[in-house]
Amino acid sequence: MGKQKDVLEKLAGTFQIRQVLLRQALAECLGTLILVMFGCGAVAQLVLSRGSHGTFLSVNFAFGLAATLGILVSGQVSGGHLNPAVTFTLCLLGREPWRKFPLFFFFQTLGAFLGAAIIFGMYSDALWDFGHGKLIVIGKNATAGIFATYPSKHLTLVNGFFDQITGTAALIVCILAIVDPHNNSVPRGLEAFTVGFVVLVIGLSMGFNSGYAVNPARDLGPRIFTALAGWGAEVFIANTYWFFVPICAPFLGAVVGVLMYQLMIGHHLEGDVQEKQKEEEVERLRLSNITANEDEGA
Amino acid sequence: MGKQKDVLEKLAGTFQIRQVLLRQALAECLGTLILVMFGCGAVAQLVLSRGSHGTFLSVNFAFGLAATLGILVSGQVSGGHLNPAVTFTLCLLGREPWRKFPLFFFFQTLGAFLGAAIIFGMYSDALWDFGHGKLIVIGKNATAGIFATYPSKHLTLVNGFFDQITGTAALIVCILAIVDPHNNSVPRGLEAFTVGFVVLVIGLSMGFNSGYAVNPARDLGPRIFTALAGWGAEVFIANTYWFFVPICAPFLGAVVGVLMYQLMIGHHLEGDVQEKQKEEEVERLRLSNITANEDEGA
Amino acid sequence: MGKQKDVLEKLAGTFQIRQVLLRQALAECLGTLILVMFGCGAVAQLVLSRGSHGTFLSVNFAFGLAATLGILVSGQVSGGHLNPAVTFTLCLLGREPWRKFPLFFFFQTLGAFLGAAIIFGMYSDALWDFGHGKLIVIGKNATAGIFATYPSKHLTLVNGFFDQITGTAALIVCILAIVDPHNNSVPRGLEAFTVGFVVLVIGLSMGFNSGYAVNPARDLGPRIFTALAGWGAEVFIANTYWFFVPICAPFLGAVVGVLMYQLMIGHHLEGDVQEKQKEEEVERLRLSNITANEDEGA
Amino acid sequence: MGKQKDVLEKLAGTFQIRQVLLRQALAECLGTLILVMFGCGAVAQLVLSRGSHGTFLSVNFAFGLAATLGILVSGQVSGGHLNPAVTFTLCLLGREPWRKFPLFFFFQTLGAFLGAAIIFGMYSDALWDFGHGKLIVIGKNATAGIFATYPSKHLTLVNGFFDQITGTAALIVCILAIVDPHNNSVPRGLEAFTVGFVVLVIGLSMGFNSGYAVNPARDLGPRIFTALAGWGAEVFIANTYWFFVPICAPFLGAVVGVLMYQLMIGHHLEGDVQEKQKEEEVERLRLSNITANEDEGA
Repeated sequence: MGKQKDVLEKLAGTFQIRQVLLRQALAECLGTLILVMFGCGAVAQLVLSRGSHGTFLSVNFAFGLAATLGILVSGQVSGGHLNPAVTFTLCLLGREPWRKFPLFFFFQTLGAFLGAAIIFGMYSDALWDFGHGKLIVIGKNATAGIFATYPSKHLTLVNGFFDQITGTAALIVCILAIVDPHNNSVPRGLEAFTVGFVVLVIGLSMGFNSGYAVNPARDLGPRIFTALAGWGAEVFIANTYWFFVPICAPFLGAVVGVLMYQLMIGHHLEGDVQEKQKEEEVERLRLSNITANEDEGA
Repeated sequence: MGKQKDVLEKLAGTFQIRQVLLRQALAECLGTLILVMFGCGAVAQLVLSRGSHGTFLSVNFAFGLAATLGILVSGQVSGGHLNPAVTFTLCLLGREPWRKFPLFFFFQTLGAFLGAAIIFGMYSDALWDFGHGKLIVIGKNATAGIFATYPSKHLTLVNGFFDQITGTAALIVCILAIVDPHNNSVPRGLEAFTVGFVVLVIGLSMGFNSGYAVNPARDLGPRIFTALAGWGAEVFIANTYWFFVPICAPFLGAVVGVLMYQLMIGHHLEGDVQEKQKEEEVERLRLSNITANEDEGA
Repeated sequence: MGKQKDVLEKLAGTFQIRQVLLRQALAECLGTLILVMFGCGAVAQLVLSRGSHGTFLSVNFAFGLAATLGILVSGQVSGGHLNPAVTFTLCLLGREPWRKFPLFFFFQTLGAFLGAAIIFGMYSDALWDFGHGKLIVIGKNATAGIFATYPSKHLTLVNGFFDQITGTAALIVCILAIVDPHNNSVPRGLEAFTVGFVVLVIGLSMGFNSGYAVNPARDLGPRIFTALAGWGAEVFIANTYWFFVPICAPFLGAVVGVLMYQLMIGHHLEGDVQEKQKEEEVERLRLSNITANEDEGA
Repeated sequence: MGKQKDVLEKLAGTFQIRQVLLRQALAECLGTLILVMFGCGAVAQLVLSRGSHGTFLSVNFAFGLAATLGILVSGQVSGGHLNPAVTFTLCLLGREPWRKFPLFFFFQTLGAFLGAAIIFGMYSDALWDFGHGKLIVIGKNATAGIFATYPSKHLTLVNGFFDQITGTAALIVCILAIVDPHNNSVPRGLEAFTVGFVVLVIGLSMGFNSGYAVNPARDLGPRIFTALAGWGAEVFIANTYWFFVPICAPFLGAVVGVLMYQLMIGHHLEGDVQEKQKEEEVERLRLSNITANEDEGA
């Protein structure tokens, strides 16, 4: 009965991926899959139960917890970005090489696609039942909004763009504070939980306009899935090509967030550290000179 | 007035169980009792108060916290599985011996049975009042769903099977990441809380189809209790023998979860560790050879 | 402008209490005040706003967080019991001397009384507005339930007694696991938070029958306050002297909880520790004998 | 592609602020901005969606999490007060110099102003849609309450004053316990989270009267913003100059909170520490005397 262990070890040997970058990409894929599976699952539960098994609050909690768990699962391998805007930010700050950006973007989108597929499979009966056999993008009994985000009726495209920029900037400011090595605000090991809190609070306060995507992969992957799964090309056309906004705006938001955090907090802390290092170096030089002189004197 | 201490110590001496396995089984029993008492208690509160004292969200929170507390109470003794699918997973991975599996399964089911009994006793007046003296399995004023899970109307048996497989796989992927010694994602001591978060988010996103049992003991124990307590054999027959699904599907889900986690994250981490160990061994051999040669040379 | 510091220090000198027991009693008083102020405040908000500013879930969260904060404020001084049933449990287990029990009981009840008074003052306009100038105990526009607990219509006295026993037993089992020195389940410093979770989950699952007092002081203090503040003696008479249940039952529940935890988990862990100590002693004796013999031999 | 790093470093060099006090003021500004952006954002989501995307509970969670994140972002630099009443308390206790008080007050109010402006911009379409093009202070379709607080109908000015005093006193008692160095109740690094819990529970239990400002800056900044942004001077005049209450009462509440905590807990702990220090000093003196005598004797 102990054979399964050998089987698992053989599998491990066969499938073990030695290329670090590919491993990281796989981890990002699984992490984003978890984010979208739990997050969009909660939206599905809210929509398909017509409110009996969910509220907007439960969706907010689900996305927050999903982000935490996605980061916990993948963080040790890839850093747990789960969001091209986060990868972009870290490349911008020089903490990750730029070549990771397209790779992570692709695998994050793939993970989001797969997460949406799992929720589609899991709730296929309920989807069928809800739409009376139809998959509708917009209007009564619409179900496309379970997977990708669509703007509220009141929202113009310009305001929508500002909405996504603001949401992502808020996310990035908080994440930068959480992971800033010079601003050790969060105890080690609690970063994932704190990022989950950030995602939760963004949902509580910035979710009414267009469902707080603030993540190009989380929106694009499920949108492609719905296009293929039967909702059709309308998921891209709807609301005057809205799909473009949650893909582009988050990167602008990331730039805004980086500038805000660095100008108001980060630079000053970094500056201090650098100055201290310089001073130490000068001191060391001075000391070695003294020693040298003493040696000479001796 | 200090006598009670002596009494307690004598009781301790009399009842102390020396067999480790039995102790662990008892701990699993108490842990699962707590899980079901608080979890099903919240469902009872929601159903019997007709929504005035609970929502589906409060049930989700209750099951999450109940899992956390059950694990905290029993974890130090037995590991705090509280779920045959988790025990099965750990046996599969060779981290627990297979002989624990039937024992734990039995005591987990027993604990769930007792937890359901406590809730039945606690809310007996309310149950009587709600059903006007009848214990109904399905339909208006049904109360069997407080204890065991029943599928929603829209759900087919195949989709229900997939639902339970997916839910359990998601649970197992997250638990494996949380307890993986090579992927120390969660600070020591917070594992129980994080598993509670996982149970919470599964309820928020995967609870609409059939109430997210994802645990054979949590479903079977209370179902047996309801069969004996007055709801009768219908609890097994209802929905074309639905009771079979939450008993069998979770084990399949556990296999899926293990494969997903190991192929995408776990193997690579383990592989690294094993390689490092091998390298260290080779290095040690090389060093001892050198020393030996030097000794010879000397 | 730095004078206020001197003033504070003088005040400190004047009012500093040197008797440890009195300090502890004061801390218990403040802790229970916080518990009742936040907890009953949330009930007041739910009732007086007729549901617009609160739900039963928010009351559950408030009591959980209130317990956490009450323990945090008083814990370092008095241990943060905030509940005569908890003090009783610790006396029963010999961890606190019995003479603390009546003292703590009194000051906990006093704190609960004061907490209720603060909420009464804070919401006095709203109470006046809600009851159209009347303070009603039972029926439409009743407000006595904001402060003390009253049973639901369906509840008999026997079931109510069982309800309070079960709730307190559940509380005590979890608290014993959390503070058990041999079962270090919760990281140091997180005990208060975990106890808050326990109070939260009890509210989520055991709150429908009679509002989960599970604490004689939390119920008696506010009840006395309401009797004096204008609701009159009816608060004691109502529901065939219900007030007796949440005063007596929790102590029985504490005994049940102690037995359950000790027989299923605690004794075995303690037994292990004692045996280890005995073995170590035997070993030490043996070693000292050997040494003695060797000395003789020498 | 690595140029952006150089650009950032140059920016850092140019904008780096060397004056510590100004840095701290900036950090307070950003922290309060985050507090108000997330907190008032949640109120906006609740009001503008007419309850479909928010509840009072979600507003409570948002303010609690917003406080936590605001403190995390700014704490390392400025201590993360985010509230003039907190700064006032720390000056009162001599832990911060008084000259910080006006500076922090100004920058906290500025941050709150900017946070309100961000939410105004983000939800401008929704505000327009909700009020049919009008910005109304009080009555049907009023939106001024999204930003600053206004009393409920039932509330008199006296009760409102007491409400704000009580709320702030509760806040200050808990914060003092959390940050008291002699009462190390909360593990290092979790202070921000615990303060968030305090803000959450105050919202759950003390939010019905007037929306729990308990913070002069959080109320004044957004109120000034609404006055300028189109709601007009009525935001100050409404409810017989209500705006005065959340500016003045919190400082009184802070004094009450300090007295309560210090008299019931703090003084005794401090007294102990001081006595211990005195005893140690006496002991040291005695020992040095002995040594001196011995030296003489020698």
